[in-house]
Amino acid sequence: MDTRLNEPAILQELEIASDAYERALADNDIETLDRLFHDGPEVVRYGVTECLYGAEEIAAFRRARTGGSPPRENLKRVITTIGSDVGCVNIEFQRLGGSKRGRQSQTWWRGPDGWRVISAHVSLMG
Amino acid sequence: MDTRLNEPAILQELEIASDAYERALADNDIETLDRLFHDGPEVVRYGVTECLYGAEEIAAFRRARTGGSPPRENLKRVITTIGSDVGCVNIEFQRLGGSKRGRQSQTWWRGPDGWRVISAHVSLMG
Repeated sequence: MDTRLNEPAILQELEIASDAYERALADNDIETLDRLFHDGPEVVRYGVTECLYGAEEIAAFRRARTGGSPPRENLKRVITTIGSDVGCVNIEFQRLGGSKRGRQSQTWWRGPDGWRVISAHVSLMG
Repeated sequence: MDTRLNEPAILQELEIASDAYERALADNDIETLDRLFHDGPEVVRYGVTECLYGAEEIAAFRRARTGGSPPRENLKRVITTIGSDVGCVNIEFQRLGGSKRGRQSQTWWRGPDGWRVISAHVSLMG
């Protein structure tokens, strides 16, 4: 299949999807966060303090996290798309009041219902 | 393009690629580690203590790391493939003598020269 990297039109699509995710994260808009993750058992989310497998574990985690994700400022974002339907979004961030550098990596695919995160990893640098 | 998840033949290919990477990591076989990462500016590797962009930064990091990656035991591996040429490999590991749970996320794509990591994130759980 066509796996050309960084076709401009696809990059733009994934930038829009990533922007929507970051807005929902800042607003703790759980319905949008759920919707932008793949709704199936294949999705993995490694967070700062948890390892979650499948959409149900991820949705339950979001509902248990009072106040949502700690507020943060994104410092750098690199998006790389592969072909027309897959891409990686890597972000460096700083939590407000925090000292450690944070990093968020997501792999998105265009499923039947649009762009969705199928693998995510968030950590604070040691 | 065809983005069916987890076609058995593709899963098997990526398992073999991941096995090769893990062997090279354990052996600190730098040439193989270099070869299994995408050779271009698009590749990102967030490590336990570093944020690296592009093949050159990653290759330099490997050469500066005396003794290679700290020895570890892999505890769990989940592979999800997307179509015929992309996949995510997520591993939970324990460093020998370490107390924190480690996680390694990689996104691979089949480039012109075979399966290569184009995005990687390694962290110890806080």
